Amino acid sequence: MTPPAGVRAAHVLVHGGPSARTQSDWVAEEVPVALVFNGISHAVMMASPADLHDFALGFGITEGLLNHPDELYGVEVSESAEGLSVHLSVASACEWRLKERRRTLAGRTGCGLCGTDSLAEVRRTLPSCPEVSFNASVFGRALQALAADQAIQHLTGATHAAAWCAPSGETLIVREDVGRHNALDKVAGALLRSPWVGTSGFACITSRASFEMVQKAAMMGAGALAAVSAPTAMAIDTAQSCGLPLAGFLRGENFVAYTFPERLGLADATPPLIHGH
Amino acid sequence: MTPPAGVRAAHVLVHGGPSARTQSDWVAEEVPVALVFNGISHAVMMASPADLHDFALGFGITEGLLNHPDELYGVEVSESAEGLSVHLSVASACEWRLKERRRTLAGRTGCGLCGTDSLAEVRRTLPSCPEVSFNASVFGRALQALAADQAIQHLTGATHAAAWCAPSGETLIVREDVGRHNALDKVAGALLRSPWVGTSGFACITSRASFEMVQKAAMMGAGALAAVSAPTAMAIDTAQSCGLPLAGFLRGENFVAYTFPERLGLADATPPLIHGH
Repeated sequence: MTPPAGVRAAHVLVHGGPSARTQSDWVAEEVPVALVFNGISHAVMMASPADLHDFALGFGITEGLLNHPDELYGVEVSESAEGLSVHLSVASACEWRLKERRRTLAGRTGCGLCGTDSLAEVRRTLPSCPEVSFNASVFGRALQALAADQAIQHLTGATHAAAWCAPSGETLIVREDVGRHNALDKVAGALLRSPWVGTSGFACITSRASFEMVQKAAMMGAGALAAVSAPTAMAIDTAQSCGLPLAGFLRGENFVAYTFPERLGLADATPPLIHGH
Repeated sequence: MTPPAGVRAAHVLVHGGPSARTQSDWVAEEVPVALVFNGISHAVMMASPADLHDFALGFGITEGLLNHPDELYGVEVSESAEGLSVHLSVASACEWRLKERRRTLAGRTGCGLCGTDSLAEVRRTLPSCPEVSFNASVFGRALQALAADQAIQHLTGATHAAAWCAPSGETLIVREDVGRHNALDKVAGALLRSPWVGTSGFACITSRASFEMVQKAAMMGAGALAAVSAPTAMAIDTAQSCGLPLAGFLRGENFVAYTFPERLGLADATPPLIHGH
């Protein structure tokens, strides 16, 4: 068979039962991807080598480097022995923003968080989330559809997926990546290039919900973030402060609401939700 | 109960069955942690706020900033509203190394990969791995012990764990973190400060095995890397080139060998393992 983009064949040795046997297998590609804005390298991420235009646009928007998709004039991908370079041609306003950020970081290298080397830059000002209410049944529906659509994960077991979902729970856009942040960034970029841009919906992810996933969901205008696994405390605090309903531990029809349960279809519950010690 | 460090209480709303119910729950802390070398901020990572001395030393070693633990003179942690700063007092050789790296990156900010903004810096020269052979049964034993020792994960479901294991499969050091790289870095640092420094062993992780996890395992002198989930293609290639036996999909006694099966206790299998398309 011809595997999907981002998947490679390998021969492996399976140890199970009394003996080991060799077999053919599929493994997920992981490639260093440099994001280069107007000739200036800003970031290198380990990523699945697919949907790179979505990635460039989505990363630019969710990291606050692009204020609007129109600031991105074009994307070109070049390949070298060391990895892929994604060249973004951007408006001068975006280039100024990048240079200003670099000026602040003069003489330093950033790390871990994208383009960030000081604590003051971790928390960005987030837009208020749109106040959309969902029916509690739509999250399980979205997860079921997302699970069925993870082509790379089914072959390799090495990737996360993210989806943009209609208020009905229908998954409109699905992207997979070896990195969970990248998968969500690719969805963010694809959404902006799709007919659904500006319409209501929510984000669904197969991973945990960390602070950065909440921040990215807020930046993409999601009405909620639904995660298969647990959120962190900082993810909950951030979702609370920017008005994002946060659901975790999606299991069939069940989930746990961490913020704004009334907008996750759990309006009748009492007592009111309280966070803290 | 008093939760372990890095865990916070929360009230959540559980949606399951006909109605929703509020209940007390535990969530994992996630905190921006800045690593500051001789006053210069090098990196900010989202991490669990525990074992920060281990983290500082382990990150320094596995990222090639410290060539030897003796280059780290001291570690102090300070707290602000924005997060934690871990101040490393390091030898002038390490400071020179950092400045050299920053000079190369003049006027740029790094991202995603630690202190890296250009493709050329992604692959580091790795030490050859020690040629230790293990019995195939030790990996399942290590995983079972590691799973029993994930205190934060059991409460929150939001953390990964990593362990340093004796050749017998006994887990000697276990660390948990909201980030899988951080968990392994904390183990690397703890190992260097333990009685087991310089002895044979292997690393076991509850997550997938990406390129960076292989690189870190090689830098810490592991005799093998055993992962609960899948490796990526680049992880396999890197393990092959630096001589690291790589096992994935640990399930009870079973696993899949991706490199050097003869050192994972699968010596009798034929034909020989071949990678590629």
